[in-house]
Amino acid sequence: MLERASDGDVAHDETAALIASDKVEGTTVYNKNGEKLGQIENFMVGKRTGRVEYAVMSFGGILGLGKNHYPIPWDRLEYNVGIGGYIVDIDKEALKDAPSYAQDDQPQFNSDYVVGVRSYYGIPY
Amino acid sequence: MLERASDGDVAHDETAALIASDKVEGTTVYNKNGEKLGQIENFMVGKRTGRVEYAVMSFGGILGLGKNHYPIPWDRLEYNVGIGGYIVDIDKEALKDAPSYAQDDQPQFNSDYVVGVRSYYGIPY
Repeated sequence: MLERASDGDVAHDETAALIASDKVEGTTVYNKNGEKLGQIENFMVGKRTGRVEYAVMSFGGILGLGKNHYPIPWDRLEYNVGIGGYIVDIDKEALKDAPSYAQDDQPQFNSDYVVGVRSYYGIPY
Repeated sequence: MLERASDGDVAHDETAALIASDKVEGTTVYNKNGEKLGQIENFMVGKRTGRVEYAVMSFGGILGLGKNHYPIPWDRLEYNVGIGGYIVDIDKEALKDAPSYAQDDQPQFNSDYVVGVRSYYGIPY
């Protein structure tokens, strides 16, 4: 169920209950310490289910790391109006062990992969 | 449930079960007669639910029509590999009565609106 929205004055790309896909893309991601982790590159939607399975956070190659794409479950992205970005509750250190891949080394995004991502972030499938 | 995917060779922005948000945006929409209706501008996702509520189809102002944004339920978008676009089963004539709005005349996208859109396309909420 959607929450009931009373959204007379909000922009057309966002309401109390809904957000436009292209507004999500490009949004900066921080952790709870206010450290910038990256930005949302895009997010993956189940073709049949219409459910967002995960968002992909990326950061530029400036750190020289190959693995710079991090799938993050939608439920773990919390939008913070004050900083104008998403907050994901994960340390920079913990990100090293999180599921990730290089742009040129894509995993197979099948249902096992989705289950693995959700489970890393403590979300039952 | 996701279908089980066997997607060794597909592009990273799409698998058998998943599609990337930015691949959906910009995709052309046709009806079953092969007539071009417009293209997907973006789509609206429930912030809490992570569910795609509807996609927004738009077409350019060349027809001189003010109302050129059409919310369409995700379930009604059927991707056709052959034509490389979505097919929505609606006549151009029927589109005149479909929920729509001008860019500068946005409705309130609350849950009543979503219910109205789904119901026009025959989908129970």
